[in-house]
This record gives sequence, structure tokens and C-alpha cells, in this order.
Amino acid sequence: MTLTLHNYFRSSTSTRLRIALNLKGLAYDYKGYALLEKQHKSEAFLARNPAGLVPVLELDDGTHLTQSMAIIEYLDETHPEPPLLPADARGRARVRSLAGMIACDLHPLNNLRVLQYLDREFGQGDDGKAKWFRHWVKEAFDPLEVMLATSSQTGVFCHGDTPGIADICLYAQVWNNRRFKIETDSYPTIARIFGRLDKIDAFARAAPPRQPDAA
Amino acid sequence: MTLTLHNYFRSSTSTRLRIALNLKGLAYDYKGYALLEKQHKSEAFLARNPAGLVPVLELDDGTHLTQSMAIIEYLDETHPEPPLLPADARGRARVRSLAGMIACDLHPLNNLRVLQYLDREFGQGDDGKAKWFRHWVKEAFDPLEVMLATSSQTGVFCHGDTPGIADICLYAQVWNNRRFKIETDSYPTIARIFGRLDKIDAFARAAPPRQPDAA
Repeated sequence: MTLTLHNYFRSSTSTRLRIALNLKGLAYDYKGYALLEKQHKSEAFLARNPAGLVPVLELDDGTHLTQSMAIIEYLDETHPEPPLLPADARGRARVRSLAGMIACDLHPLNNLRVLQYLDREFGQGDDGKAKWFRHWVKEAFDPLEVMLATSSQTGVFCHGDTPGIADICLYAQVWNNRRFKIETDSYPTIARIFGRLDKIDAFARAAPPRQPDAA
Repeated sequence: MTLTLHNYFRSSTSTRLRIALNLKGLAYDYKGYALLEKQHKSEAFLARNPAGLVPVLELDDGTHLTQSMAIIEYLDETHPEPPLLPADARGRARVRSLAGMIACDLHPLNNLRVLQYLDREFGQGDDGKAKWFRHWVKEAFDPLEVMLATSSQTGVFCHGDTPGIADICLYAQVWNNRRFKIETDSYPTIARIFGRLDKIDAFARAAPPRQPDAA
């Protein structure tokens, strides 16, 4: 099976998908799109994804899959080993919920296109954008830390001792935070989990600085 | 089984969950939280969900589930009939992707807490907030319309002739848009699907104006 990943090194949704592909042992062709040069708004890219957003996973028959979380669920269903979700429904709900705290409540607010809007339409410079970015990280990471620190279901990773979908989101988000020099020192459980994830090759290889299009 | 839904009539993530519960034929106790009065920031509510966000679904054993999309997947796994996702992995990826275009790319940006931030920190009044709201609706609905209108997999509803997770998100979002007087006239496929969904009791009963805490 030939897979092509249309993505961008710094995009945290792209990082998520790279981790999932690595964990599943799936090789892929890497195609980078320089978002700052609007390469994801080209006609060719919009034919792959009318939303003009990375990542897109192109399957061998030419099908284009969009939305990182939907694609990761697809990969987990079609390549069950190693599983990225627990076997029990309650556990799955917990992991999807922890993932959603990042994928729905946090990441969309701090995306490049949003920061560009704040600049262009509301005249917010670097200070305003940094304040915005930090605010939403805190709004999500404060409760995430509480939920991880107080649950007996948290293990070496977000849920037990096997990395899964929540860990994928967490790892990508911590990298994203670094763009605004936000470290995880004040979040001991998140920092501990990130440290462990960073020692796993499938995660570390997916990190932004290690991609071919990294600046 | 006694279910308690901690939610708010106007919250579109709450609307999603009400639809899913209705489709599954699950009765629930309705608890409304006036977000404008910060009832979801009370100590009692934060004990249910440290993120201070609705909806929360409380199960009979006292477990609190958070994040609407995670809860809907849980309901679909634990109460398989009628299914809210297609049986095939590719179909599931398509439906989760369409849902994600609303649940990740659109709704989080236009949430109450975000509009309040734009007002409080960036001094944006009603005009600025309306422009913002409309911009992100257009950014998501333009490609959503293209993807629905051009796919042979779109049927009476977003995917085939059975309502599912994408329809749940779409229905709730169209109600949300109405807060800013955005109608779906310029989106014929979305308008057609919404019209059909609105004729289904499980959807119509979940609409904001029909909730006990509606103003």
C-alpha cells in the first residue's frame, strides 16, 4: 500500500497523523506544503481537500482522507495493532475526551489561520497573539492536568501504559506550544507523559524539527 | 439506567448530545446551566468537569463523561441501534471527517467563551464579533457544501439515507448560526439536509428553543 501524506512540518494536526502512521508501522511519502506561502490554497491542493487544510492522507487508490482525528480512527480500524484506543467503551470515551480537549477545545483556536485573522482583521500584533495563544493553552491544560493527575486510569501515558490517541494529541500540542515558548513545567503530569512519549521513536520521529520541510 | 444531561439549551455541543440520546431512545434528566450567569464555573459543576464546559453526561453509577463527540461515540458503541456511523471504515472516515469540519474547525472558534474573550481583551463589539462568527462559518460551510454536493455518498442525509454523526453536528451548527442570523440559503445541499433532519422528531426535539431552560 502506498500512502502519501500531504502535510506541513509545523502543523500539529500533521504531527498527530505522522505519529499514528509511525505507530502502525505504515510507510508514507511525505509531501510538504509551505502554509506561509499558501501552498495549501493552490488549485491542486483544494482538489484534494476543498477546506484547504492539512493534513490529507492519500490512499493508494487515490482516495483523499481529511481531518486528522477521523484519519487516525480510520487507521486504528484498518490496522488494529497496536491499538490506539482501549478495548472498553468507558476507556475509549475517556481517551477520546482527553483527545478532544486538545483537538476541539484548544488546537483550533491557536491555528495559524486564526492568528493571521487576529492580525489582519483585529490589528493584533505579536503581543496580542501571544496572549491569545497562552490563554487557550491554559484553559485546556489546567483541566487536562487535573484530570490526568487525579485519575487512577492514568498510567505511564494518558490512559494506562500504552500510548494512544490522547497521547498523540498531547505530544503534538506540546510541540505546538513551544512556538510561543510555553513549556510544561507547571503541569507535572503532562510533562512526565511528554517526557516518556519523547523517548518513543514513533513519536520523536514525527516531531516538527525532524521533518524534511523543517526550516 | 438513569442518565443526567448537564447542559445548556443554546450550546450546540449540548444540542448534538440531545439528538444522539433521542436517536438512541435514551431518556435523561435535563439539568440546565445558565452560561451567561457562569453556572458552569461553580464548584459543583467543576467537580463534574474540571474544564468547566457543557455538556456532561452523568451515568447511573456517577461517572461523568465529557466532550460531546467522545460521548456520542460512546453512546453508539454501547447502544448500537440505530447506528450513527456507517459499517465500513472508509464511510466512517468520511462521516467523522464531515463532523470534524464542524466540531473541530468551526464550532470551537465561535463558542461563547471565545466571543467573550474578543470583547473583553480585544475590545471587539457586536460588529467585530459578528464578522468573526460569519467568517468561520463561511470557512467551514463553503467546503462542506462542496464536499456534500459533489460526493455520490451523500444521500438524503450527509452520508446515505440514515442520519448519523455528521448530520448531528450539521443540525446543531445551523441552529447555532441562527444566533447571528446566518441562514443556509446559499448552501443548497446543507439546506436540503437540514430541512429533512428538522422533520425527524429526535432532531427537532433537541433544538434549542424547545429546551426547558430556553429563554
